[in-house]
Amino acid sequence: MQSFDLDRTDVSKIKGALAGSDEQLKAILEEYHASEIAILFESLTSDDRQRIINLLSVEIASEVISEMHEESHPEELLLQMHPDKRTEIVEELDYDDATDIISQLEEHEQKEILEDLSEDDASSIRNLLSYDEETAGGLMNTEFIRINLNLTKKDAIDEIIRQSEEIEEFYTIFVINDDNVFQGIVSLKDIIKAKGNAKITELVKAEVAWVYPDTDQEEVARLISQYNITSIPVLDTDMRLLGRVTFDDVIDVLQEENTEDMLKISGVSEDEELSGNWVEAVKSRLPWLVLNLGTAFLASGVVRHFGPTIEKIAVLSAYMTIIAGMGGNAATQALAVTVRRISLYDLTDNQAYRTVLKEFTVGAINGAVTGLIVFLFALFFDSNPLLGLVIFLAMTGNLLIAGITGAGIPLILKRVGIDPAIASSIIITTFTDVFGFLLLLGLASKLLL
Amino acid sequence: MQSFDLDRTDVSKIKGALAGSDEQLKAILEEYHASEIAILFESLTSDDRQRIINLLSVEIASEVISEMHEESHPEELLLQMHPDKRTEIVEELDYDDATDIISQLEEHEQKEILEDLSEDDASSIRNLLSYDEETAGGLMNTEFIRINLNLTKKDAIDEIIRQSEEIEEFYTIFVINDDNVFQGIVSLKDIIKAKGNAKITELVKAEVAWVYPDTDQEEVARLISQYNITSIPVLDTDMRLLGRVTFDDVIDVLQEENTEDMLKISGVSEDEELSGNWVEAVKSRLPWLVLNLGTAFLASGVVRHFGPTIEKIAVLSAYMTIIAGMGGNAATQALAVTVRRISLYDLTDNQAYRTVLKEFTVGAINGAVTGLIVFLFALFFDSNPLLGLVIFLAMTGNLLIAGITGAGIPLILKRVGIDPAIASSIIITTFTDVFGFLLLLGLASKLLL
Repeated sequence: MQSFDLDRTDVSKIKGALAGSDEQLKAILEEYHASEIAILFESLTSDDRQRIINLLSVEIASEVISEMHEESHPEELLLQMHPDKRTEIVEELDYDDATDIISQLEEHEQKEILEDLSEDDASSIRNLLSYDEETAGGLMNTEFIRINLNLTKKDAIDEIIRQSEEIEEFYTIFVINDDNVFQGIVSLKDIIKAKGNAKITELVKAEVAWVYPDTDQEEVARLISQYNITSIPVLDTDMRLLGRVTFDDVIDVLQEENTEDMLKISGVSEDEELSGNWVEAVKSRLPWLVLNLGTAFLASGVVRHFGPTIEKIAVLSAYMTIIAGMGGNAATQALAVTVRRISLYDLTDNQAYRTVLKEFTVGAINGAVTGLIVFLFALFFDSNPLLGLVIFLAMTGNLLIAGITGAGIPLILKRVGIDPAIASSIIITTFTDVFGFLLLLGLASKLLL
Repeated sequence: MQSFDLDRTDVSKIKGALAGSDEQLKAILEEYHASEIAILFESLTSDDRQRIINLLSVEIASEVISEMHEESHPEELLLQMHPDKRTEIVEELDYDDATDIISQLEEHEQKEILEDLSEDDASSIRNLLSYDEETAGGLMNTEFIRINLNLTKKDAIDEIIRQSEEIEEFYTIFVINDDNVFQGIVSLKDIIKAKGNAKITELVKAEVAWVYPDTDQEEVARLISQYNITSIPVLDTDMRLLGRVTFDDVIDVLQEENTEDMLKISGVSEDEELSGNWVEAVKSRLPWLVLNLGTAFLASGVVRHFGPTIEKIAVLSAYMTIIAGMGGNAATQALAVTVRRISLYDLTDNQAYRTVLKEFTVGAINGAVTGLIVFLFALFFDSNPLLGLVIFLAMTGNLLIAGITGAGIPLILKRVGIDPAIASSIIITTFTDVFGFLLLLGLASKLLL
């Protein structure tokens, strides 16, 4: 479909070449882009990765390492490398990428890598390591193009060319004054188009979005996506320029946050690595299952309380599973829509209120329709219209509760400052289980005995 | 936190200004960025939006309209506008944005808008309307900077400046030959840095990713994210340049696809609008609930089959809810992790096999641990070690099945070319309900009666 697309053939090709000489392997590797080698690495052993990295130029090797997924542990590859090669590669990496990788190591390992670097590089990375990983500071790159407000067109172009020797990619040119205070941005296009005697001060665009280093990464992503900008400046409280966060980091953040939300509402800890092994998965999920067991005992306590009723009308236990299952699924539907809506939009109080009202209505209608189906079933199969009525009422009531809790609980959590995705299906289905059984068995005790 | 941040104050401010004169309102509006007005529109009535749009310059008005969320229906705003103003605004819009908005209208309404446009604009938009919305063709913009391979540095810069009069934002300069065949990309920075007599042919970077107009939008997003590029060229089968898709479109695609996945695995139709009304929500969810009802009858049939057993040991119905609830939640966990993993990575057959094996192991361990807790509970509360054993076995077996189906079903669906997120919790919990009851009640019949 496009020029680069990896498949199993590529993996076998590399694996085949690994059996041959270094020269042959090198020739094959030249056919691939660094980001492709990073993907192929996922299918290779640690020793093979090491051999390949050592064959690549420092430029390509550092690009491969920066493109490797966090889950493929580029930091381990770095750690096992010869210290000289490692230092070359780390110095070639952008500061933000180097920081991301080094931050995954133990403190003594970090120290080992940093002390081989130049004082300048080491202190820049040390500085970035001090920011929380999930903030603008943790995402930002401290290498960017900055020019003084008072430069003329010609001097500005010279300065940009000079600075761009060090910086591979830039999307935005930041403008500062003599005190290093941020003044705005300017595009290379506008500089080139300007008249010969133009000054940057005439070209600068001052009204731009910016963030502080402690701004949450979700907010950074929201701003970049809202204003369609390739990079956003990070400023300190004196409005001095500390760094920039670029759109490609934001794409990664969005994928990460979306993964977190999806796992959380499904009752999986947000830090479970998708490709982690079973030990990590057990550690991440067992606590939630134990919590679920606790809530299940609660629901089961309700059933136990109505034991005598069930002994008399055993068929109730067949309907119990229907009421609980339907309630759980209706609640999961309301939960998914609401959590997703909260994460994409800022809801006003009025919108939040209307959301709950909407889910209440949806629950009532869906409950009544499916309740009616079960009523008819009970009428024909169990020839018991009163039992049908009890089931109809329990179904409608339980889907009402599903709607209110599925929408209401994440909205309340958001309001009090807790991540709404924590309102996982495990929490929400407790309500529908308990209320569903209470309604069905309570009504049955009153009306059928 | 940053220069632009909207809150309730802004909404009240605009609403207050709407009560005053046009001049006052205009003055207040000038304080806001177009994308902020687009957000504020969400809290305003259709009449107020119309009044504001008419007060704004054509440039700002078209930006507001292009920034409005699909769910706020910019096409309705456009339709209700005075035709002259509308034509001005549509001509100011980028072709891809105009196409997105117009595509939401009925055919006769589309015609009404298009026939007022210049022949050139109308045919460009008509052409874009012909592509599927969820492909590169549907996302691409046909306005971009293209220069001939044979230009010299000076002519290239002149050409770029000339073309950029029409194109507000550009990130990449595309290079073509005399036959309009795509040759690669070049950066403005490299052109400026080149020697005076350099030709574009010496500067062009030929190895770049590209797509066809019918490439799926998810693939486009994956490539832009993999290669960290601001835009990707769209080529026809003769390698001629048709357009470009930019990173900001890709951010929107990712958010959309993530919403779809989250809704689907929760049993909500992917086309339910998050802020839709209750009618849409009922239409989207009721069919899934009815499907769930069908599967619930299946599970309930199992319970009914074991009616005599339950009549003798009524406490079994209390444990049934625990086994079914735990199985459902464990399956949802495995499902979320697997669906997310499939959507982020391409899994090889071997990786898919190991994923199922991992979930089997996780299910066995989590089942045994939680089964043991329930065993102890049964021992102390019901003083019945044999009942405890039955429950322990049913729990372990059901969580094993939860792991295998939660991971296996989406992987099989992916393999046969069906969207794995369709394997919603509704489908998966059918397995855990049916097998959970079969195990618990079947074992109880054999061992306890």
